[in-house]
Amino acid sequence: MRTTIKEHRARLNLTQEQLAEKVGVRRETIVFLEKGKYNPSLRLARDISIALGVSIEELFLFDDEEKKHYASGDDLDMVHIVPVDAGNAERYVELVEALANFEHLDPPGEEGRARLISDASSADRPFRAFLAMVEGVAVGYVTYFFTYSTFLARRTLFLEDIFVLEEYRGRGIGTKLFRFCVDEAKREGCGRMEWTALDWNEPAHRFYEGFGAKRLDWYLFRLTGDDLDAIQ
Amino acid sequence: MRTTIKEHRARLNLTQEQLAEKVGVRRETIVFLEKGKYNPSLRLARDISIALGVSIEELFLFDDEEKKHYASGDDLDMVHIVPVDAGNAERYVELVEALANFEHLDPPGEEGRARLISDASSADRPFRAFLAMVEGVAVGYVTYFFTYSTFLARRTLFLEDIFVLEEYRGRGIGTKLFRFCVDEAKREGCGRMEWTALDWNEPAHRFYEGFGAKRLDWYLFRLTGDDLDAIQ
Repeated sequence: MRTTIKEHRARLNLTQEQLAEKVGVRRETIVFLEKGKYNPSLRLARDISIALGVSIEELFLFDDEEKKHYASGDDLDMVHIVPVDAGNAERYVELVEALANFEHLDPPGEEGRARLISDASSADRPFRAFLAMVEGVAVGYVTYFFTYSTFLARRTLFLEDIFVLEEYRGRGIGTKLFRFCVDEAKREGCGRMEWTALDWNEPAHRFYEGFGAKRLDWYLFRLTGDDLDAIQ
Repeated sequence: MRTTIKEHRARLNLTQEQLAEKVGVRRETIVFLEKGKYNPSLRLARDISIALGVSIEELFLFDDEEKKHYASGDDLDMVHIVPVDAGNAERYVELVEALANFEHLDPPGEEGRARLISDASSADRPFRAFLAMVEGVAVGYVTYFFTYSTFLARRTLFLEDIFVLEEYRGRGIGTKLFRFCVDEAKREGCGRMEWTALDWNEPAHRFYEGFGAKRLDWYLFRLTGDDLDAIQ
C-alpha cells in the first residue's frame, strides 16, 4: 500500500509530530504509515484524511496485486510467536506500557518495570508471555495464566493481556495471538478461557464475540493496595 | 435463641418439608432453626413469620444473656479455618455443590466431583481451599488462587468462591473467611484482591463494598467447552 500522506503533509507544512498530535497517535505511527508498512484502521485513515483535507481514496493507494497479497494471508506467515525470555523482556515491558496507555490506565512504574522483567524471565514465572514478531520487531504480545473453576473442576486459561501496536492492526496479528491461546487452552485440557475487556472498548467486544465468546452476568470487584492495607 | 416455629407449624399441620418449600429453603434449614442452632437472616425470619401467620417477635425468642453472648464475638472464637485435605475433600465438594445451587449454576457432575476431590487434595493443587468449621462441622469455605497484574507487576489473590451455609449466616463467618483471604494476600505480597459476584446478588455486593472494594468497569468474557472446541 502506498500513501500520499507525506506529500499532503508537506503541502500544509506539517511535521510528522504535528500530524500525529492532530490525529492522536504517536509519531512512529505516521512514520510507519508513510513508509506504506501497514494497513491502518478505517477510523485512523478518516482522521488523517480530515486533518489533511483530502479524501481517503487520494491518501491511500491500493493496487490489485497488493490487495490479493493481503487477502492471501501471506502477511500472517511472517508473524512469529516467541516466548518472552531474559533477552526480550525489556521489549515485552514496553508493550505492556503501550497497552496501559491505550487503556488509559497506570503502566508499571520504575520498580514495577524491574519486577515485571524479573518475573517474566524467571524460571518460576507467575504467568506465561509471548511476543508477536514481524521482521524481527515485537509488535504485540499476550500474557496468560491458569485459574480454576470449582464448578467445572478444570483449569481455566485466563487471558490477562492481548495487544497489537496500532500501526500493525488489521493484519490478523491479534487473531493469531488469540488462536495461539485457544490452542494452549486445549493442549492443557482447560474447560474454559476467560478474560475481561473495558466496558468502552467496543472493537474488543466485537473481536471476542466473533469467536463465539459470551459476556457474563458477573460484576468484577477489586480491593487495591491502600484499601487492602486498611483492612485489619 | 429459642423459636416457636415447631409449635406454630404443628398448629397449621405443616411438615418441616412443607414449611421449607413455602419459604424457599432446604428442609435442613428448618431443622437447624427449630433446634435454635442459628440466627437466620431477617428476610428468612420475615418469610417464616408470614408463612406461619405470627409476628417475628413471637417466633424468635432472644433472652438478654444470649444477645450479649452473640454480640461478644464468642461465637466467632468457635469458628476454625482449616485447610482442605484428603480427609475432608468430600465435604468441601458438598459445599461447592451448595454454592452452585445457591447461584443457580451447574455444580460439578460425577466426573467433576472426582476431579475436584483429587485436585483439592493433591500436593500440586491448582488452588487453595479452606473450610470454616463450627463444632466439628464444615459450614462454609473459600477457594482462591493467584493471578498476576502486569500493570502492577505483582500477584493478585483471586477469590474464586466464598460461601457459608444459609443456616450459619449472620454470625460473621463469611467475614472471618474474607479476612482470612485478606491476610493471605498481604502475607504473599499481593498488590490486589479480585473476585466476581453475580449481578443479581445484592447482599454480596453490599458485603464486599463494606470492605471498601470497588466494582470495576470491565466486562467479563468466557469461551466454554463447545465454543472453545469449535475454534480451529
